[in-house]
Amino acid sequence: MTDLSKGAAWMAGDILPIGEAKMSVMDWGLTHSDVTYDVVPVWKGGFFRLDDYMDRFLESLSAMRLDPGLSRAQMVEALTDMMAASGLQDAYCAMVCARGVPLIPGSRDPRECGNHFYAWCVPYVHVIPFEVAEAGASALIPDSPRRIPQDSVNPRAKNYHWGDFTDGLFQAKEQGFNTVILLDHAGNVTEGPGFNVFAIKGDRVVTSGHGVLGGITRRTVLEMVAERGMTPEERPLPLEEFLEADEVFLSSSGGGVTPVVRVGYRVFGNGAPGPVASALRKTYFDWLVAPKFRTEIAYA
Amino acid sequence: MTDLSKGAAWMAGDILPIGEAKMSVMDWGLTHSDVTYDVVPVWKGGFFRLDDYMDRFLESLSAMRLDPGLSRAQMVEALTDMMAASGLQDAYCAMVCARGVPLIPGSRDPRECGNHFYAWCVPYVHVIPFEVAEAGASALIPDSPRRIPQDSVNPRAKNYHWGDFTDGLFQAKEQGFNTVILLDHAGNVTEGPGFNVFAIKGDRVVTSGHGVLGGITRRTVLEMVAERGMTPEERPLPLEEFLEADEVFLSSSGGGVTPVVRVGYRVFGNGAPGPVASALRKTYFDWLVAPKFRTEIAYA
Ligand SMILES: Cc1ncc(COP(=O)(O)O)c(C=O)c1O
Ligand SMILES: Cc1ncc(COP(=O)(O)O)c(C=O)c1O
Repeated sequence: MTDLSKGAAWMAGDILPIGEAKMSVMDWGLTHSDVTYDVVPVWKGGFFRLDDYMDRFLESLSAMRLDPGLSRAQMVEALTDMMAASGLQDAYCAMVCARGVPLIPGSRDPRECGNHFYAWCVPYVHVIPFEVAEAGASALIPDSPRRIPQDSVNPRAKNYHWGDFTDGLFQAKEQGFNTVILLDHAGNVTEGPGFNVFAIKGDRVVTSGHGVLGGITRRTVLEMVAERGMTPEERPLPLEEFLEADEVFLSSSGGGVTPVVRVGYRVFGNGAPGPVASALRKTYFDWLVAPKFRTEIAYA
Repeated sequence: MTDLSKGAAWMAGDILPIGEAKMSVMDWGLTHSDVTYDVVPVWKGGFFRLDDYMDRFLESLSAMRLDPGLSRAQMVEALTDMMAASGLQDAYCAMVCARGVPLIPGSRDPRECGNHFYAWCVPYVHVIPFEVAEAGASALIPDSPRRIPQDSVNPRAKNYHWGDFTDGLFQAKEQGFNTVILLDHAGNVTEGPGFNVFAIKGDRVVTSGHGVLGGITRRTVLEMVAERGMTPEERPLPLEEFLEADEVFLSSSGGGVTPVVRVGYRVFGNGAPGPVASALRKTYFDWLVAPKFRTEIAYA
């Protein structure tokens, strides 16, 4: 019996321990970051909003002209088999499709590569550590880097172009912040490494409507906001407006809703999570176990 | 005896056939494109301008705060041992340093990852096929995508963020062009997938001075231009000026100087390589074997 408790992978029909899941160093998925992916949360033994994550993955594939070589049903089966074999009840479950290597060595034509699908899972990841998220996180908004603009790389096709985030994360960590939020070139708040960003003012809840990933947690938040009778707004979010909000928070498949209590020098709510963000955080964890959103996994 | 004629790799002190050179699918080098690299040409059994390529690689490493865990001399030794074992006389020789995986699983702190160096080589790659380059290449300059701006991702630290190039390449290939050249957001000509770009007007030879990689072949071209008594200019190169040039060409470690005879609808020199670009192409191949630039490899 192989030990899959640290994580598992599905590659070309085989299920492997995560430590054995590897890709060629010549794959364009690596050498051109020519790859798309998605991550569906698994919580208490079931996928959350699996159909929505699969929809988004298929949209990313088509936007990037990648062919996984499997049907949607076959990909879902691969994810399910892998999760069941792993035994992991709470997991970060990734599906990936990479461009592969040219079928003719030395070719530089992206139409002539061997695209391939694979999947992997590890124990659930909190993008902001759970205790930090409970107490309220801090974020730096640096003047530079600015988020890669949408007319350079399409942010709606989920991608691994994280050079801007990594540069920002180094600055944030060195200045003692938990994470980083990037501005676009017009000075609007966009997103961060693994999350969308929201501002609450009165009964309005604002999040950027372009230049960012269409987060599934973002969608869940917009639904929760509507259910509370508040008004969701998807539009550009200028930095000045963001800093004058009543509350601000992050949304991510890796941890749900995270209240933010400090952005640079600006402290929100005297340093404690605000009432709305706290309520949304709690509701998110309730929805994670709500039958209507779940696809249960039949573990071995 | 293992067959290394298709390529070889150096990983953690071992020399492997290229087909066995793999990286974890969880490595941030892949999942965050958090990796830098360089490629030194090997020609007729010797490295070309090895010191200059190593200088640039060390600058990229420090710009990206990556620690290869080896000294410069040790990296040169790894490249040399790998080349000697491969037997390849004309090769694309890549050195890479990736962020690695977090030392604490689930951490999102880029300071806490296991950075690692590796190298690989394959038979020499012509970014534009040799026969096409001899006859003069064609390039598309699309309106979108625009080159990732330098205040999003530093283009001088050689990186794998090629989403803009890949998008452009799909457009170029589908419209029958050999390759793509991208504009910046101000409408200046920048660079393409694997090359810098030049325009010749009278005795002036112009190439973009910012927002692009500091190509070693670009440097070689600027030296060849000065030697011919022409005037090199490093500055923004507006599209309109580019299209009105006498000749235009590309520079790359993968093939040297490539004359371009068609850019979109604009045909240069009646469709034949111009005299200066052709002369520079020839001189580049001469310099490739000039002793002052070479580091010979002692093959097994
Ligand atoms: C850049 C970026 N924005 C936003 C998100 C949040 O999206 P989701 O809620 O689907 O996890 C992610 C998730 O990884 C991301 O990488
Ligand atoms: C984006 C980009 N620009 C320019 C170049 C040319 O640089 P060099 O002459 O050092 O090969 C490359 C080489 O790969 C490149 O990737």
